[in-house]
Amino acid sequence: MGRALAGALLSAGHRVTVWNRSPGRADDLVGRGAVLAATVEEAVAASPLVIVCVIDYSAVHAIVRPVAETLRGRTLVNLTADSPDRAREAAAWAAAHGIGYLDGSILTPAVSIGTDGAVVIYSGPEEEFAAHRATLAAFGGRADHLGTDPGRAAAFDVAVLDFCWTAVSGYLHALALARTENIRAAELAPYALGIGDLLTHMVPLFAEQVDAGEHPGDQSTVVSLAAGMEHVVEASEARGLDTGVIGAALATARRAIAAGQGRDGISRLVDAV
Amino acid sequence: MGRALAGALLSAGHRVTVWNRSPGRADDLVGRGAVLAATVEEAVAASPLVIVCVIDYSAVHAIVRPVAETLRGRTLVNLTADSPDRAREAAAWAAAHGIGYLDGSILTPAVSIGTDGAVVIYSGPEEEFAAHRATLAAFGGRADHLGTDPGRAAAFDVAVLDFCWTAVSGYLHALALARTENIRAAELAPYALGIGDLLTHMVPLFAEQVDAGEHPGDQSTVVSLAAGMEHVVEASEARGLDTGVIGAALATARRAIAAGQGRDGISRLVDAV
Repeated sequence: MGRALAGALLSAGHRVTVWNRSPGRADDLVGRGAVLAATVEEAVAASPLVIVCVIDYSAVHAIVRPVAETLRGRTLVNLTADSPDRAREAAAWAAAHGIGYLDGSILTPAVSIGTDGAVVIYSGPEEEFAAHRATLAAFGGRADHLGTDPGRAAAFDVAVLDFCWTAVSGYLHALALARTENIRAAELAPYALGIGDLLTHMVPLFAEQVDAGEHPGDQSTVVSLAAGMEHVVEASEARGLDTGVIGAALATARRAIAAGQGRDGISRLVDAV
Repeated sequence: MGRALAGALLSAGHRVTVWNRSPGRADDLVGRGAVLAATVEEAVAASPLVIVCVIDYSAVHAIVRPVAETLRGRTLVNLTADSPDRAREAAAWAAAHGIGYLDGSILTPAVSIGTDGAVVIYSGPEEEFAAHRATLAAFGGRADHLGTDPGRAAAFDVAVLDFCWTAVSGYLHALALARTENIRAAELAPYALGIGDLLTHMVPLFAEQVDAGEHPGDQSTVVSLAAGMEHVVEASEARGLDTGVIGAALATARRAIAAGQGRDGISRLVDAV
């Protein structure tokens, strides 16, 4: 991801200084005009805007804390993914050291960076975002400032990941279940794509219902959802597959039913998770 | 769903006889020209093609077993959702009583029936499908015959439901997580829709990888997936939310890592579920 970000900045005509723990990985960037810094210190000292994107915030701390004095008066944009609380901690550390700080999350794959498909979200002081907006636009697509609370971008990010990785887990379990029935993945995929269409319909509908606190059960109810999930659990158990994920989802539906919400619409589950 | 099916047959100009345990629910259909049967026997005796769609196969059995002799020589199309094994049992019962049998599953909501958006899948003898294909076309959209194994439509159905309901659970958990961070559902929804686009890309890609048994880790690996899931678990625990679903998904990823598959692509999880 770091290479994609630096590459997008180069493509947009910016002067870029790069540093990576594995220096050889920057060769292509250097070939395109980036300056390779020998140390973090040197990289930070080269620009008013410093962007860090690594595996998690522990890695961020290991890199930036030793160069806090060099960062003073500059802006650090942290595009590393982690939890909202860790983003707030990082912002507090930056503030204590006179470092401008924006916390960001990248919601699309590395290949999207620099294209119209990129989605990067930011939170932190509005003046920091305004000052660097034009530079950050190099990443392409959407660059949304979601608020001044530095944990806000990470909060959106974990929620989006929650949906994404749960859905992907469900799909891969579905492919495993289909395989036990001698259904090839390519045979199932067209119908799974239809579910993608259905999700496109349900995402805004359920959002509206959740915000309104109203969950009409005129189309599908929690009870019918639980019946469908039971078929999946039963079919999975019959083929010796793990039922951890769908079983936990069914347990949620059963909690809602036990709470008297069985005749409500499916979006009522927001109160049972 | 039964009303939607009967309504679509009426709209297509077919003579339709209906029966329901709650007779009042057929009033609108009768107003549109359907004949209301006083008994199941009467309903079955009225037509060469009998369609049943109820809550599960136990309910199907309770309705059709007492009228087996009347069904003999007719075709029963069972559009009730249940497990593949139950579909095979029902087909065996029908065969033993000289009843033509097609097992089907409806993959789209009741409102889609009779429109281009409907997707209904069937399995069972090809000659039965061929004989009734024109009538079943009244349900609209796609009517796919997936094979002669009577459990095949149900197998596709449970796999599709597995994906659908797991994804929906993930989305509602994401909305709950966002809510703890004072993010309204309407604010999160646009980014969740972006995940829908990503799924549209991943569904055929992962299908190809699963069928080939090749899971290249050049874009995303099981290790990076697990790191993302850990952030979701951590953020959820910090806000007192249930972590059953995402925790079980993370356990799957950890099993794959323990099996030495951490550097493989995400689709490798098909072997860990």
